[in-house]
Amino acid sequence: MGRTIGLDLKSKRERRRSDYVFHQDYRTRWADNDMFHHLNNPIYGVLIDSIINSYLIDKCGYSTSKSDRIGLVANSYCDYFGSAQYPGVLDVGLRVVKLGKSSVVYEVGVFQQGEEKVKAVGGFTQIWVKREDNKVDSEGVPRHIREEMAKLVNSEDSDVVKPSKL
Amino acid sequence: MGRTIGLDLKSKRERRRSDYVFHQDYRTRWADNDMFHHLNNPIYGVLIDSIINSYLIDKCGYSTSKSDRIGLVANSYCDYFGSAQYPGVLDVGLRVVKLGKSSVVYEVGVFQQGEEKVKAVGGFTQIWVKREDNKVDSEGVPRHIREEMAKLVNSEDSDVVKPSKL
Amino acid sequence: MGRTIGLDLKSKRERRRSDYVFHQDYRTRWADNDMFHHLNNPIYGVLIDSIINSYLIDKCGYSTSKSDRIGLVANSYCDYFGSAQYPGVLDVGLRVVKLGKSSVVYEVGVFQQGEEKVKAVGGFTQIWVKREDNKVDSEGVPRHIREEMAKLVNSEDSDVVKPSKL
Amino acid sequence: MGRTIGLDLKSKRERRRSDYVFHQDYRTRWADNDMFHHLNNPIYGVLIDSIINSYLIDKCGYSTSKSDRIGLVANSYCDYFGSAQYPGVLDVGLRVVKLGKSSVVYEVGVFQQGEEKVKAVGGFTQIWVKREDNKVDSEGVPRHIREEMAKLVNSEDSDVVKPSKL
Repeated sequence: MGRTIGLDLKSKRERRRSDYVFHQDYRTRWADNDMFHHLNNPIYGVLIDSIINSYLIDKCGYSTSKSDRIGLVANSYCDYFGSAQYPGVLDVGLRVVKLGKSSVVYEVGVFQQGEEKVKAVGGFTQIWVKREDNKVDSEGVPRHIREEMAKLVNSEDSDVVKPSKL
Repeated sequence: MGRTIGLDLKSKRERRRSDYVFHQDYRTRWADNDMFHHLNNPIYGVLIDSIINSYLIDKCGYSTSKSDRIGLVANSYCDYFGSAQYPGVLDVGLRVVKLGKSSVVYEVGVFQQGEEKVKAVGGFTQIWVKREDNKVDSEGVPRHIREEMAKLVNSEDSDVVKPSKL
Repeated sequence: MGRTIGLDLKSKRERRRSDYVFHQDYRTRWADNDMFHHLNNPIYGVLIDSIINSYLIDKCGYSTSKSDRIGLVANSYCDYFGSAQYPGVLDVGLRVVKLGKSSVVYEVGVFQQGEEKVKAVGGFTQIWVKREDNKVDSEGVPRHIREEMAKLVNSEDSDVVKPSKL
Repeated sequence: MGRTIGLDLKSKRERRRSDYVFHQDYRTRWADNDMFHHLNNPIYGVLIDSIINSYLIDKCGYSTSKSDRIGLVANSYCDYFGSAQYPGVLDVGLRVVKLGKSSVVYEVGVFQQGEEKVKAVGGFTQIWVKREDNKVDSEGVPRHIREEMAKLVNSEDSDVVKPSKL
C-alpha cells in the first residue's frame, strides 16, 4: 500500500522544479490566455493530463486504444499561486505522490520558463480498471506500469514507497 | 463569516439538479470528447468557469474589463462520477457553498440531458481583490455582488448564511 | 455530380438564419473569449465541426467508432464579419452547398442570439473513405448519409442538386 | 502593393520546413486529439494564431492590450494532408505570402517532429486597423511591424515584395 510522502507536509506554494522527477516543456498558445491576458485555469488541467498520459504512452507502453486496462480519473484539483501566460514556454514537472494497489496519485507543477516561483500545482487520482467493464480487479495497476510509476516517486522523501515493496 | 452548509455532509455523488439554484444548458462540442469518446476532464473546469462568470456578468453587473474589483481563483477541484459526451446537451447547476468576507466557494453539478445521475461535481474558491494590485482589502466581496451571491445559497440547508447577516 | 448552388453568388456577409436548413444553439463559454474579449477564431471551427458531426451522428446514424466509412476533412475556411462573445448563445446554421459522389461541401453560419447580422461563415469539404485504409472507392458517400445530406440543401436555390438525382 | 509570390504556384502538399522563415516547436496536448486519435482540425487554427501572434509580440513589439493599431483576421483557411497527433512535438513554420498596405497574408506549415511530409498548411489574412474604431486608415500596417514582416518573406521567391518597395 502506498503512503503520502514527505513533500506533502510542505506548502505546495514552495515547490521547486527539482521536486519533480519527469519534465516536459509546453509552449503556450494564443487560445490559452483568457480575458485577463493569463492562462485560463482549465489549461493547467490540460497540461496535467498531457504530461501524465505522455509518460504512460511513451514510457509505459500504454495504448489508449488497445491496452486491456485503462486509467480513470476519480478526482482532480489545482492550486493557483501565480499567472502563467502566452507567449512563452512552460516547464511542467511530474511526480507520483502515492502508488496504491489500484490507484495512483500524481502531482504536477507548472513553471514559466525564466521564472523560479511555481505558478500552479495540481494533480489527480487515477484508478486502474479493466477496459471491458470499467471495474477494478485484483491485478490493479498493471505490473509494467507500476514499475515505471515507481521511478516518478521523489527519492528524497523519507517515506517513499520503494519499488521493491510494490 | 460564511459556514459550510448542510449539503456538504452528503456524498457529492448523490447530487440532484434541485440541489442547485442557478441553471444553464451547454451544448457539447466535437472537440470536447477525448480519445475515449467522452468529455475531456478539463472541459468540466471550462463549464464551471462559464456558469459562474456568466452569473457574475449577467446578474451581478461584473465587468471583466472595468470593475475595480476582480475575482481570482485560489484553487479548484472536480470529482468525476460518470462520463458525459458529445453530442448532447449538459444541464449545469450552480450554488454558493460558502460566502465569506473576501471569498466565495462555488459548487457546480454537471448532468447530461435525459439522465438523472450527476456526471461530475466541482467548484472553486474565489478571492475578491482590487484590480490595481491584486490585493484583498476591507471591502472584500463588493456589496452588490454579495447580495446576488446570497441568492445562490441553497435555502434548504439549515445552516445557510442568511443574506441579512452578510 | 453536385454543382455549386445559387447562394454562393451572393456575398457571405449577407447570410441570414433562413439561408440555413439545420439549426442548433450553442452557449458560449468563458474559455471561448480571447484577450480582445471576443470569440477566439478557431472556436468557429469547433462550432462548424460540432453541428456537422452532430447531424451525422444523430440524423444519419453515423458512428465515429464503428461506421465502416468515415468523413475526412480535406480543407476548411472561415470568413469573419463581426465578433461574437461570451457570455451569450450562438445560433448556428448548416446547409450543404455541394453533394458530390465522394465529397460533401458544407457551409455554416454563426449568429449571436439577439443580433441579426451574421458573425462568421465557414465550412469544410469532406471526403468519404473506407475506415480501414482511408481510401475513396466507388461507393462514395454512403446512401443513407447521402439521403439525409440532401435535406440540407437550401431548396430556394435554382440549381440545387435534387435528391432524386443523387 | 504586395503580390502573390512564387511558392503559391506549387502544391501546398509539397511544402518543406525550409519554405518557412520563422519556426517554433509546439508540444501537443492530450486534449488536442479527437475521437480518431489525431489532432482536432481547429487545433491547426490555434497553432496558426499562436506562431503569428508570438512573432508579433516578441519580435515586433506588438501589445495586445496597448498598441494603438491591432490586426483583425478577415478570413482563414487550412488544407489537411496528413494527421498529426499527441503525444509528440510539432514543428510549425511561418512565412508572409503577401504584404499589402493595410493587410498581411500569412502561411503556416505544420510538421510532426521526426516526419518529413507536411501535415497541414493554413493561414489567414490580417487587416490592420485603429484600435479605437476598428477602421483602416492611411497608415495601414505600422512601419516597425512592416519591417519585421518583410523578414518573413521567403527570399527564394522571384517576385518577393522587397522591403525597400513597401
